[in-house]
Amino acid sequence: MTTTATHPTIPAARYAERLRRLAELVAARGLAAALIAVGPDLDYLTGYRAMPLERLTMLAVVAGQAPVLVVPRLEEPAARAGTRPALEIATWMETADPHELVADLVRRGPFSANGANGIGVSDRLWSSQLLRLQAALPGATWTSATSVLRELRMVKDADEIELLRLAGGAADRVVDQIASGPLVGRTEADVAREVRERLLAEGHELAEFAIVASGPNSASPHHEASDRVIAAGEPIVLDIGGALGGYGSDTTRTLWVTGGDDAKGPTEEFRHLFAVLLAAQVAATAAVRPGVAAEAIDRTARDIIDGEGYGENFFHRTGHGIGLEGHEEPYLIAGNDEPIGAGMAFSVEPGIYLPGRYGARIEDIVVCGPAGPIVLNNEPRELRVVSG
Amino acid sequence: MTTTATHPTIPAARYAERLRRLAELVAARGLAAALIAVGPDLDYLTGYRAMPLERLTMLAVVAGQAPVLVVPRLEEPAARAGTRPALEIATWMETADPHELVADLVRRGPFSANGANGIGVSDRLWSSQLLRLQAALPGATWTSATSVLRELRMVKDADEIELLRLAGGAADRVVDQIASGPLVGRTEADVAREVRERLLAEGHELAEFAIVASGPNSASPHHEASDRVIAAGEPIVLDIGGALGGYGSDTTRTLWVTGGDDAKGPTEEFRHLFAVLLAAQVAATAAVRPGVAAEAIDRTARDIIDGEGYGENFFHRTGHGIGLEGHEEPYLIAGNDEPIGAGMAFSVEPGIYLPGRYGARIEDIVVCGPAGPIVLNNEPRELRVVSG
Repeated sequence: MTTTATHPTIPAARYAERLRRLAELVAARGLAAALIAVGPDLDYLTGYRAMPLERLTMLAVVAGQAPVLVVPRLEEPAARAGTRPALEIATWMETADPHELVADLVRRGPFSANGANGIGVSDRLWSSQLLRLQAALPGATWTSATSVLRELRMVKDADEIELLRLAGGAADRVVDQIASGPLVGRTEADVAREVRERLLAEGHELAEFAIVASGPNSASPHHEASDRVIAAGEPIVLDIGGALGGYGSDTTRTLWVTGGDDAKGPTEEFRHLFAVLLAAQVAATAAVRPGVAAEAIDRTARDIIDGEGYGENFFHRTGHGIGLEGHEEPYLIAGNDEPIGAGMAFSVEPGIYLPGRYGARIEDIVVCGPAGPIVLNNEPRELRVVSG
Repeated sequence: MTTTATHPTIPAARYAERLRRLAELVAARGLAAALIAVGPDLDYLTGYRAMPLERLTMLAVVAGQAPVLVVPRLEEPAARAGTRPALEIATWMETADPHELVADLVRRGPFSANGANGIGVSDRLWSSQLLRLQAALPGATWTSATSVLRELRMVKDADEIELLRLAGGAADRVVDQIASGPLVGRTEADVAREVRERLLAEGHELAEFAIVASGPNSASPHHEASDRVIAAGEPIVLDIGGALGGYGSDTTRTLWVTGGDDAKGPTEEFRHLFAVLLAAQVAATAAVRPGVAAEAIDRTARDIIDGEGYGENFFHRTGHGIGLEGHEEPYLIAGNDEPIGAGMAFSVEPGIYLPGRYGARIEDIVVCGPAGPIVLNNEPRELRVVSG
């Protein structure tokens, strides 16, 4: 039996600092409150991780007031044990209406239906709960709390980067283990199951996704691993990830399985497509530095792929931020002129897909360092031709 | 290597029937549309299971129109492979606004800001997406789609009950395996990891929760498994579950570990508390039959516990519905006078908690049969005194 994996934990003082900065931002933006439900925002601010459920758990950061965490009575001991900074906890009994309790907290601050009526809510708050809050606070203007939280969450500190690095290294080892085979003759779903088991064995607490897309399925970027049996002489796109210490891993490598038969190696067309893709991925990564616009990194990859005539076959953005969420800001996409700053972490993952035939993708998590990219995935990016 | 577990699948025609019934209910209630995001409602209606992400995937069931599934372009092949009924799929490119696309679909129907302006949204839709839809459709009145979908989802058909039965049986086997030990000397977190591995090994595709609450932690109903080391002479509340074929398992048993030392058996107080709890759980289960009010089942358990002076120590409802969601309607709680109908499935799980000392809970999933309860968890409910 192994014990729980050890990894850096965020000190309690840092959570208190994050809460303090959020309260400052709420006041500075003239918001009446930020209301944060169970999910990555709550984890970021308090360290408390709970399952999102129908019973409302909500951190109310009301302008001019100390933050209060509203929790169901039965979860009070778990919330007290799970929150890292000192924090007032208010409980509600099963037959009470917690949305009214939150509305009362909001009304303790500057909220007024005709004045300071802006309320930011966490992006993952369920609609069932937002609709009840809207009914409890008529006259409010509802916005995304990410409009303020993004400033904090986008820039990772040293502990967060270390957790991303550990998660990335663990995912790299799983890619290497899977590439070692066996693969030919197994279903995608069976390989996906192995990926999940190995992610857990390498220290992830959550094996969130395991895309195993073989043959024609490799042309589907978000393919769901199926009962298709992997055959010799085809590519496999392996896109895997989860969370370690709360922080995400997400890496993609493209294999080609020969079944040990040299005659079943990659086609010339696939080798060419892959060479273009690799050039695009490497160039986009090299473009990462403080001050570059997010869309410029996307453009770097896209120009190379467009230039070789594959523009139509690269129909997704180049990357997404990563941290406590698998997808978060910043997004590397046309139209996002946000300047990348040191400490931001994101995927760089162009792909080329020929519908009905095959496709390929290469993905690394990259942190913007003070002078350029720090790459957290270090398995070879070249087309990996394996027996499988 | 094992292959994917086999279990009943819902036939494609059943999904088409569910969609048809939802469309009828939308029209009958005078709603302009029901908008269903990724999650259990979408799974129920189409069979399509995707990760909830920031890119909008949404089924638009607009009154008088054929349903349309809006998906990001890069997920189109996965959506075509994953949806079971024939369904129009509309895609959006990365830099487009999918909320406007959905609003356009709604406006094809009877929607009018001053007339038929009711729009039901799935409960788990993220607030970030609801706020954008609200901006795209000013004048709409937003409600929970559960107000119509509950009529369909609450009553399980034979295939759904079989999936719940298989999930329950798998969870029962894991409880039995864990009760066989070893337990004493291990951390709760280590046992929780074993629970998750065993749920997967028993055919679950998702090992969602593993409450391992030892000693004083057993007084915390939603305790997060910690680094506390389990000692001889204390109780362990084991509350575990996940999903098999999409359908939930959720069972709780209370053990007492002696470490092989007969002097470290349960205290008289604990035996008494447990006997009261068992009587309450058995009586509440026996009260299940068509036509009984949900709150009456809660009351049955609560009266017994109150009568023995433990009323303050049972501070949660008696149960929750289960199906594609771990918690769904109907809820067995004071104030819910909904009559239970044949085919409804829910937990029966009273608990008694003495803060700082210890607690106990017993939980089964119960289906309301035509003449009484059908119990899906069948491990012994008695206090299980084990060496550990």
